[in-house]
Order: sequence, then structure tokens, then C-alpha cells
Amino acid sequence: MTHRSYPLYAIGVVESVLTEPAEAPRQSDEDAPPAWLVFEPELRSGLAGIEAGAEVIVLTWLDRARRDTLTVHPRGDLSRPRQGVFATRSPHRPNPIGLHRVKVSEVDGLRLRVDHLEAVHGTPIVDVKPVLGDPSER
Amino acid sequence: MTHRSYPLYAIGVVESVLTEPAEAPRQSDEDAPPAWLVFEPELRSGLAGIEAGAEVIVLTWLDRARRDTLTVHPRGDLSRPRQGVFATRSPHRPNPIGLHRVKVSEVDGLRLRVDHLEAVHGTPIVDVKPVLGDPSER
Repeated sequence: MTHRSYPLYAIGVVESVLTEPAEAPRQSDEDAPPAWLVFEPELRSGLAGIEAGAEVIVLTWLDRARRDTLTVHPRGDLSRPRQGVFATRSPHRPNPIGLHRVKVSEVDGLRLRVDHLEAVHGTPIVDVKPVLGDPSER
Repeated sequence: MTHRSYPLYAIGVVESVLTEPAEAPRQSDEDAPPAWLVFEPELRSGLAGIEAGAEVIVLTWLDRARRDTLTVHPRGDLSRPRQGVFATRSPHRPNPIGLHRVKVSEVDGLRLRVDHLEAVHGTPIVDVKPVLGDPSER
């Protein structure tokens, strides 16, 4: 590797009833519970314009994942041949960034309620972006 | 902030004819040119399973962006009121991660050709993920 690295900061944290990765559904559409995204106070102005009903992409840092994994059995199914992690959504990957498309159901100051999120309680949030209108950009 | 930070590694780099951020279209659908994604040799096995035709999400590190920006005029249009960066796709944000949905047109070992990419030459790549079938997960 080039060994270049960049410090990623936690801008907030997930509050969820999910506490163990083993409980978490593998994707957000699979019965994940609602959750709160709780942001750091000094980033308040960065949230201006996010309203209930907004569709957003939340990027998280999956801090319990392994970073030295390069191949996995898709969805943990040992009957399926190993694939490269970049061809899968495995949390285990060199930079374990989680990507979650969610709908904001409530805005309460530094807290955003989202409809479904598979990330566990305490997962650091690293970015939030709007979903764009054009499906090609999602 | 909590001051927690996590080191993000460059897993590869963008090769593009775009060299200046000012030339880059603001979103990938706006006449962005094709580009190559060139990966670090030791991550080769992580690419297994990515084939021509695949739709993938590329995450980049926008290393020329400002990290201390919390509000912007959307799309740089001064006639529009300032919004929080998390309500926009501005590259300037606390963690300047670029999110690009692209189609792979060619696979050549450690190099993936993609159809359109608005990131400039030399932009570090930090992750690649497949687009999932269900639009709710995009």
C-alpha cells in the first residue's frame, strides 16, 4: 500500500436497540429497527436543511469489523464460493465504512430519527448525504 | 467532538483526464469522463467477483476539500440560501468522502474502467461496494 492514511472523525453516534453485531440484519431492509443519529454539538449548523421525510445516505465506521479480510463467503454462506470483499457488502474490509440509505422520520435538534438502520448501538457516524433525485446517483 | 478518529487507507487511486477540481462536473451524470480505478497490488484478491457490467459504489477521499466547512450555498449558487453540508453533496465537509455510483466497463487486473467519474486524477479511493438489487439499499 502507499501507506497514505487520512483521519476520519466521528461526527456522531448511532443510538439503537441493536447491541450485538450478530443481531443486526445484514441489510437495512431486513427488519432493522428505527434508530437515532446523534450528532456532535459543534456540527449543528451542518444539519441545517435536513427535514423529516428526507432520504439520506448515512456513512458509518463499523468499528467492530476486521480490516485484514479480503475475501468472504457472501452473506456468511459457506456453500457459496469466496468473493472479494469489494464485490460484497461485508462489513469486514480494509476501510469498514457502512453505507445505509434511510429516511429521516423526525428531527430533534442534534438528533435525527431514521426509519430503519442495521448498525448497532454506539456505531460512529462519519457522514450524511442527501439521496439525489436522479436514480443514477444513488 | 469526541475526538475519536480512525485511519482511513487509500486502497487505490483514480486515473482521469480531469486534473483540476474546477473542471470536474458536480455530479457524475453531468458529462464526467470515463476513468480508471487503480488498486494497490496487495488488495488484488479483494476485487475477485467484480466483472464488466457491474454497478458499483466507489467511495473516494476528496483530499483537496476543506474539512472545516459546515454550511454552503448549494451548488455554489450564491442566490440560494446557505445549507448545512450534510444536506448537500458539497465536497467540503468534516469527512470529505466522495460517493460515486458507476458502471464497470472493463476489468484489467488491478485496474477497473468505469463509465463516468467526476473525481479528479490522483483522488484516493477508499472503498468499492456493489449496488444492491433493491433500490431501497442504494
